[in-house]
Amino acid sequence: MFDAIYARGEVAVELTDSAWLRAMLDVEAALARTLAELGAIPEPAATRIAEVCSHPDHFSVETLDRSIAHHATPVVGLVAALRTAVGPEAAEHVHGGATSQDVVDTAMMLVVRRALVPLFADLDAAGDAAARLAAAHRDTPMIGRTLLQQALPTTFGLYAARWLDGLDQARVHLVHVRDAELAVQIGGPVGGRDPAVAAGVAAELGLVEPTLGWATIRVHPALTASVLGTVAGVLGKIARDVTLLAQTEIAELAEGGSAGGSSAMSHKHNPVAAVSALACVRRTPGLVATMLGSMESEHERAAGAWQAEWGTLTELLTLVGSATAWARELLEHLRVDTARMAANLAQAPTGSAPAPDGAGALVDRALAAHRAVVR
Amino acid sequence: MFDAIYARGEVAVELTDSAWLRAMLDVEAALARTLAELGAIPEPAATRIAEVCSHPDHFSVETLDRSIAHHATPVVGLVAALRTAVGPEAAEHVHGGATSQDVVDTAMMLVVRRALVPLFADLDAAGDAAARLAAAHRDTPMIGRTLLQQALPTTFGLYAARWLDGLDQARVHLVHVRDAELAVQIGGPVGGRDPAVAAGVAAELGLVEPTLGWATIRVHPALTASVLGTVAGVLGKIARDVTLLAQTEIAELAEGGSAGGSSAMSHKHNPVAAVSALACVRRTPGLVATMLGSMESEHERAAGAWQAEWGTLTELLTLVGSATAWARELLEHLRVDTARMAANLAQAPTGSAPAPDGAGALVDRALAAHRAVVR
Amino acid sequence: MFDAIYARGEVAVELTDSAWLRAMLDVEAALARTLAELGAIPEPAATRIAEVCSHPDHFSVETLDRSIAHHATPVVGLVAALRTAVGPEAAEHVHGGATSQDVVDTAMMLVVRRALVPLFADLDAAGDAAARLAAAHRDTPMIGRTLLQQALPTTFGLYAARWLDGLDQARVHLVHVRDAELAVQIGGPVGGRDPAVAAGVAAELGLVEPTLGWATIRVHPALTASVLGTVAGVLGKIARDVTLLAQTEIAELAEGGSAGGSSAMSHKHNPVAAVSALACVRRTPGLVATMLGSMESEHERAAGAWQAEWGTLTELLTLVGSATAWARELLEHLRVDTARMAANLAQAPTGSAPAPDGAGALVDRALAAHRAVVR
Amino acid sequence: MFDAIYARGEVAVELTDSAWLRAMLDVEAALARTLAELGAIPEPAATRIAEVCSHPDHFSVETLDRSIAHHATPVVGLVAALRTAVGPEAAEHVHGGATSQDVVDTAMMLVVRRALVPLFADLDAAGDAAARLAAAHRDTPMIGRTLLQQALPTTFGLYAARWLDGLDQARVHLVHVRDAELAVQIGGPVGGRDPAVAAGVAAELGLVEPTLGWATIRVHPALTASVLGTVAGVLGKIARDVTLLAQTEIAELAEGGSAGGSSAMSHKHNPVAAVSALACVRRTPGLVATMLGSMESEHERAAGAWQAEWGTLTELLTLVGSATAWARELLEHLRVDTARMAANLAQAPTGSAPAPDGAGALVDRALAAHRAVVR
Repeated sequence: MFDAIYARGEVAVELTDSAWLRAMLDVEAALARTLAELGAIPEPAATRIAEVCSHPDHFSVETLDRSIAHHATPVVGLVAALRTAVGPEAAEHVHGGATSQDVVDTAMMLVVRRALVPLFADLDAAGDAAARLAAAHRDTPMIGRTLLQQALPTTFGLYAARWLDGLDQARVHLVHVRDAELAVQIGGPVGGRDPAVAAGVAAELGLVEPTLGWATIRVHPALTASVLGTVAGVLGKIARDVTLLAQTEIAELAEGGSAGGSSAMSHKHNPVAAVSALACVRRTPGLVATMLGSMESEHERAAGAWQAEWGTLTELLTLVGSATAWARELLEHLRVDTARMAANLAQAPTGSAPAPDGAGALVDRALAAHRAVVR
Repeated sequence: MFDAIYARGEVAVELTDSAWLRAMLDVEAALARTLAELGAIPEPAATRIAEVCSHPDHFSVETLDRSIAHHATPVVGLVAALRTAVGPEAAEHVHGGATSQDVVDTAMMLVVRRALVPLFADLDAAGDAAARLAAAHRDTPMIGRTLLQQALPTTFGLYAARWLDGLDQARVHLVHVRDAELAVQIGGPVGGRDPAVAAGVAAELGLVEPTLGWATIRVHPALTASVLGTVAGVLGKIARDVTLLAQTEIAELAEGGSAGGSSAMSHKHNPVAAVSALACVRRTPGLVATMLGSMESEHERAAGAWQAEWGTLTELLTLVGSATAWARELLEHLRVDTARMAANLAQAPTGSAPAPDGAGALVDRALAAHRAVVR
Repeated sequence: MFDAIYARGEVAVELTDSAWLRAMLDVEAALARTLAELGAIPEPAATRIAEVCSHPDHFSVETLDRSIAHHATPVVGLVAALRTAVGPEAAEHVHGGATSQDVVDTAMMLVVRRALVPLFADLDAAGDAAARLAAAHRDTPMIGRTLLQQALPTTFGLYAARWLDGLDQARVHLVHVRDAELAVQIGGPVGGRDPAVAAGVAAELGLVEPTLGWATIRVHPALTASVLGTVAGVLGKIARDVTLLAQTEIAELAEGGSAGGSSAMSHKHNPVAAVSALACVRRTPGLVATMLGSMESEHERAAGAWQAEWGTLTELLTLVGSATAWARELLEHLRVDTARMAANLAQAPTGSAPAPDGAGALVDRALAAHRAVVR
Repeated sequence: MFDAIYARGEVAVELTDSAWLRAMLDVEAALARTLAELGAIPEPAATRIAEVCSHPDHFSVETLDRSIAHHATPVVGLVAALRTAVGPEAAEHVHGGATSQDVVDTAMMLVVRRALVPLFADLDAAGDAAARLAAAHRDTPMIGRTLLQQALPTTFGLYAARWLDGLDQARVHLVHVRDAELAVQIGGPVGGRDPAVAAGVAAELGLVEPTLGWATIRVHPALTASVLGTVAGVLGKIARDVTLLAQTEIAELAEGGSAGGSSAMSHKHNPVAAVSALACVRRTPGLVATMLGSMESEHERAAGAWQAEWGTLTELLTLVGSATAWARELLEHLRVDTARMAANLAQAPTGSAPAPDGAGALVDRALAAHRAVVR
């Protein structure tokens, strides 16, 4: 029910149980193909395994559920089901030399990578919308406000250019995550497996090949979470600004979507997209903290910390994806009341003094940077 | 899929979308009955509304979903559906003078109250199991350990009595939450409604009547969350101890349930219940922080902070409920290897020195306190 | 330097190194007196120890510093210095049967108890100021705002009464902490010491006697931290409201203290007290989360989690104390512009409709509750 | 007093009030020189200002303290003192066109940059020590442990190589912070200042020139904090492993420093460095969450969130610096008991099976990567 707020858009779709199941099967398939290439298992077995893994709908999430309840990992059940499905000849070659953690960790990275696709789409659309606002209002005067007090004149172009700059900075870090942090984790039971296997699986899945397996050195998921939290922070800044400029007494902005009627008061138009984005964003710092806290793990596999990551990262990504979708909605339909901006400025203590000299050039600078970031 | 870890037991069942829907309808029914008692709406209208509200299965969660997406609250859609369902005569008396927040906040408290029932059941069973362990091993010697170093002799009875004391302290705070914090929030659009309505609804629903509506003073949900976080902390302590005493090199405890086989190594018996409890517990401090951060709200209704609470409290309660169920499973089937305890103690630097004089009396004290707490 | 924001008022004074040193000596003195009463050490030795402990200025914090660096506890160094100071006859009776954790934990509770005295003074003054505002403006009309949109008329009396109610709820929980959570922790090396010692020390120090020592069951500090976080949340709500109502475009409230000029803009009057309170409050949820996370400890003494509490709880209490002092400053000097409230209301979409019927009665109700809470 | 745990090493020295004062004066000097170069103020005035700013000991922290108490920023007082100190001719050119936030934000980045110097020194020394351990024990067999259960044989070389890999990953992210995130923030009152000024100040101070000022888009400090939290997570992993392998029953590692005696039990050797590192690390996730939460700010300057950052980032950096110093101490003096490793392995359920084939090659790989990272 609350998913309408917390799980808007397409990111959540990539984070369902089915998406996790598909990703785990993709890891098993990639592993089998890699082992065949390395001559460790017969080619036909690998082909058979990969074929069966390409039909995730033949597997039930309930199997994984029971496996988790009994083993604290879905992989035991998945491997058993997979062995049955591939038939007796290939069965022994399934999951060759791998551990539960190899499969779950690598699947997690795959799930994140797939979920980043719609997230980037929404983020870029939000950025483009912010760029349009900055360009259109490059020279629209408004009063600037510090500590919520009217301060000196500025432009709405610069105001929106800051949002744009924030979105672009967020994007750069997210690209780094995609291209440098989403690594396979293939180490075998105690992490000592021949790195050629990890290299092969990485190539198969389009993930990064790490120096070592990271089963217990959780920089990759922790930094991924941190960047997601930072992205959320930028979205929260934008949404907060909109709620403030949309206040009845200021009224320089209004949301333009169809949402926003009130149950009790017909004259209100509520900033529903901004409020929803903020609801998602407010939930993220605690989740990042959980991911950072989960870095403290024991020996070759954590007793509790690792298992806490799965739900936390899934939820964090869902919320950031949703906040991005809300921010896109917000920015693409934002109504700017330039007359009201002018009126508020005229009544400000400073009067209608000119905006700072550099404002226009800074808008241009942010727009140029945006074009460089998003091709 | 991960629900097998994160949502074990019956608490999660009380936190579904259906449970929320039922609770919101119960609030609308209680409001109607109260208004009729106060003479504010006709008796037959209240009867009709209450009758319709007693069939939550006639309403669809999708309606609420759409309502949330458009209004950032499920209540607009719910009220519209309810008005249609009660027919034209009663329609105008539905949701009389209430706001979305009245319904959502009061329903949230009702949902929490209902979820506490199975949580108390599991917590009491866990406490009773800890009490049995403490009593059975009142005089079982073992080596105590500080900073993970062997220190001086103690007894497993005292070790378990500390768990028991923690569970009992947790219980006392949770009883306080149930009896003093789970209050109706019925204030009308700006909080100024006649308190007789809140009093009536509180009596109808078995919730606390507060001094004022708490739409923006969020002590009730924040403290509820804090206590849940404290309960989780106790469970985490117990589970951590079990993982440590179950280490192969120590082996004084072992989980006795059927779970715990390893995918890669047949000789291992993994402490699945303890690991799962820890996975849940590790996720809770960040959620409590989110609830505390959500106390900073704006005027008569928060723009973002309030909407962040719904998912956060639901998840926090789910996780604490699950950790409690895991802890119960853990404690009810814990295997104590007294021979190993004796052997480890004999090899300790202190040798088999006697346990502290007070140990037995302290076990008795904890057992007596437990009997006083849980009737 | 930043202490002017983060450590305003008298609470911080009770949390210095000297305050900790004094508290630890008080614990050693109470322990010696208790042991003498129980006949475990000679009366003259206890008298001598207590006498020496009453001069904390004879001890240097550097001693404790070195002790912490070498032993991860200040107590080793303190006990050595104390033994030297009391002379050869009493030396062997110093710290009788106690551990570092007994002293540090009990001292921590004593420090908290002492810091609560000025905190209550500021909290009560803030509450009284809120009560005066509520009473004075019981019938002052203003426009209510939900989701930062003008909604329906209310009164500033009710607005302030909600603050009052929040402060009073916070106070009740803080009284519970003082009277039920601030317990001695006297258990000896593995927690099995005769409880008569804990009882005696509790009586000596005016702290609570617990069922068992809580060296590793951290409900007391965790709940103390949680309540402090909840108090902070109430203060943050008040401060946020003030910043919003003090916006240039709304201007219904203004801070009345001498602070608030701007470095760059002479026409601004910044809400310095509210901003400073918010700066403190924003820092608290993460600290509470750390305290909750520290509940997961190992066996008879935690390796890391316990040692993380000292700085965290000290800082949390400092910040909450500071936020309380700022809130008191804020509320005692708040300027209410009733003319502006009337003007804003007249321009609202609702026009100057009357405030809700129940508003005045609810103000009276909150005032009566306040009188009952703060004698 | 607790600084011996929380503020070990040289990082804390760079984060004192004096260090902040010096950094703020450096910003004022850099601003004056830049403005002179741009022809905006007379060269002699800039020279005079820079000269005066090079004597931070001529300024008192108390001045800043009072300024913060009255203005919620130290800069008002600093600028007044600086104007007096430079004399009447240069006075009007002090702080030309800048705001408090320009100075505080840029000084914060400068403070961080300076504190990173000793942090890198300790981190590199810790990494080198881990590399030596990995190399020396490349083929030392030990039993691997998953979920705290003995699993399959591995080598201590690989165990230490994972630590090394974690430290090196942490280092890479920290280098990114130093070289890409530590940017000047020079925007003037509403952010619209000519970017040539920011460029000049950046060149003067050796900080990054950003696209726009980031007064309210807090990606730079948030990401800095996130990376610090990730570094802490790696250190916590190492320290946790040491406490576990140093358990009396396992005894494969021991700390080799002089610290570690127990107050109550002479036979214990406590893992003081590991415990102290963990105490620091456990405090960091909550602080990162606070920094992320502070990204939600208002318009051109935050009312509360910005002011919360100063203490939070200072403390986070102090704790991470301290944890790094402890980890260096730990790793440089770690005692490895290879005989005990062999004995534990011989008793393991697997018996003395060989370590995985890839273990040695992975150690070499991590060592090669380390040499590439740290020149």
